[in-house]
Amino acid sequence: MNTTYFTRRTIRKYEPRDIDEGLLERLLTAGTRTSTTGNMQVYSIIVTRAAEMKQRLAPAHFNQPMVTEAPVVLTFCADFNRFNLWCRQRDAEPGYDNFLSFMTAATDALLAAQTICNAAEEEGLGICYLGTATYNADRIIEALELPKGVVPVATVTLGWPAGIPEQPDRLPLEAVVHYEKYHNFTPGLIDDLYRAKEARADSLQFIAENGKKTLAQVFTDVRYKKADNEFFSAKFLEVIRKQGYRF
Amino acid sequence: MNTTYFTRRTIRKYEPRDIDEGLLERLLTAGTRTSTTGNMQVYSIIVTRAAEMKQRLAPAHFNQPMVTEAPVVLTFCADFNRFNLWCRQRDAEPGYDNFLSFMTAATDALLAAQTICNAAEEEGLGICYLGTATYNADRIIEALELPKGVVPVATVTLGWPAGIPEQPDRLPLEAVVHYEKYHNFTPGLIDDLYRAKEARADSLQFIAENGKKTLAQVFTDVRYKKADNEFFSAKFLEVIRKQGYRF
Repeated sequence: MNTTYFTRRTIRKYEPRDIDEGLLERLLTAGTRTSTTGNMQVYSIIVTRAAEMKQRLAPAHFNQPMVTEAPVVLTFCADFNRFNLWCRQRDAEPGYDNFLSFMTAATDALLAAQTICNAAEEEGLGICYLGTATYNADRIIEALELPKGVVPVATVTLGWPAGIPEQPDRLPLEAVVHYEKYHNFTPGLIDDLYRAKEARADSLQFIAENGKKTLAQVFTDVRYKKADNEFFSAKFLEVIRKQGYRF
Repeated sequence: MNTTYFTRRTIRKYEPRDIDEGLLERLLTAGTRTSTTGNMQVYSIIVTRAAEMKQRLAPAHFNQPMVTEAPVVLTFCADFNRFNLWCRQRDAEPGYDNFLSFMTAATDALLAAQTICNAAEEEGLGICYLGTATYNADRIIEALELPKGVVPVATVTLGWPAGIPEQPDRLPLEAVVHYEKYHNFTPGLIDDLYRAKEARADSLQFIAENGKKTLAQVFTDVRYKKADNEFFSAKFLEVIRKQGYRF
């Protein structure tokens, strides 16, 4: 398999040059060949290239510079809108206004997103996922004029890397992979699995910069706080329901 | 980019031969290099190779033959369990028992799943996603002994293709891709986008076999019925909450 899978890293800074239209179309076509539930293709991809539209999207992504600096921004959406329209036009009553259908559509969108990212990276492009797609889904819906049935679940910025940052760490494979059954973690194993991560210079710097005692506290008290998670959780649930998925 | 992206199709029948352990480990390693939110890696992959475990999983997947016939079955799970254990062991109070955290973890799992599928297909392996992972998550949790915090979101069967079936259709790119803004669909455009799909011999056969008038009715009345969606929706929500995500 191509080596990009192993050497990749998220790219947040891009060269000013554009992505060729033919290449972008090939990436999108590769994406649409990805598995989807029942071949329903219940997702959509909004391609943002116009500077004005990037400006409009930026606040939803907390003005992270990637949004305006990347030549292409892709917003992946769970989308039963088109499918529902087709059903109604064909004397069929769709029953897809529920949580499972939202998850089905979100899954279609995310799998297609990742194929596009893998293909893009194989071509030398750099990608960055923005978690803000779910945080501020309401503002993205407004900016991109998404109708009912359509919910953004991931945003990816795409461009030619301006420099290659250091590859971030990953936990040992055994932190993620379980054979045959889930083998829960003993305190000793947790220590082992996180030892290398905690000893990294950047981890120690994170802890010091944030005045914390442990790296885990940087996550729980600074980066992904309970109060923020609960706030954005409620907001995202409200958006999903407003877009027509009832649960 | 490699041509597999364009030529791929889901493979449901596999040769009896196994997947080399080294290859499987490379696939899993490629998967763990995939983007994850904040590099938290809040997902897990359960690898099923033992015949006995496949038998135990099979009913959860409605005994689809892929589960027992594929040499490898991968169950991808949203998983805050390990991360929460680490936090608690490091004097940090995790706040990840909410809907957004579940979506974050599910996204991590699904993106890693798709990287593994792309890499596997590049190596000549065939894959099949089983939607049943979310339908019967409760039975999968039982079979794989998944602790609190862990929720299956996708199952993939993996093996060497026993024959290459015809490539299924996809809608034209413009059904899925929107430029700059979402361009909603007029009735005429819906007709255009679905015309080729509806004219296919297999579509006509589906309609006839099921005694329906339109292809859309095969979806709404037979394959993905409202009552089933609502039943499995309620069931999946219950499982997610039981696993510790409150919303």
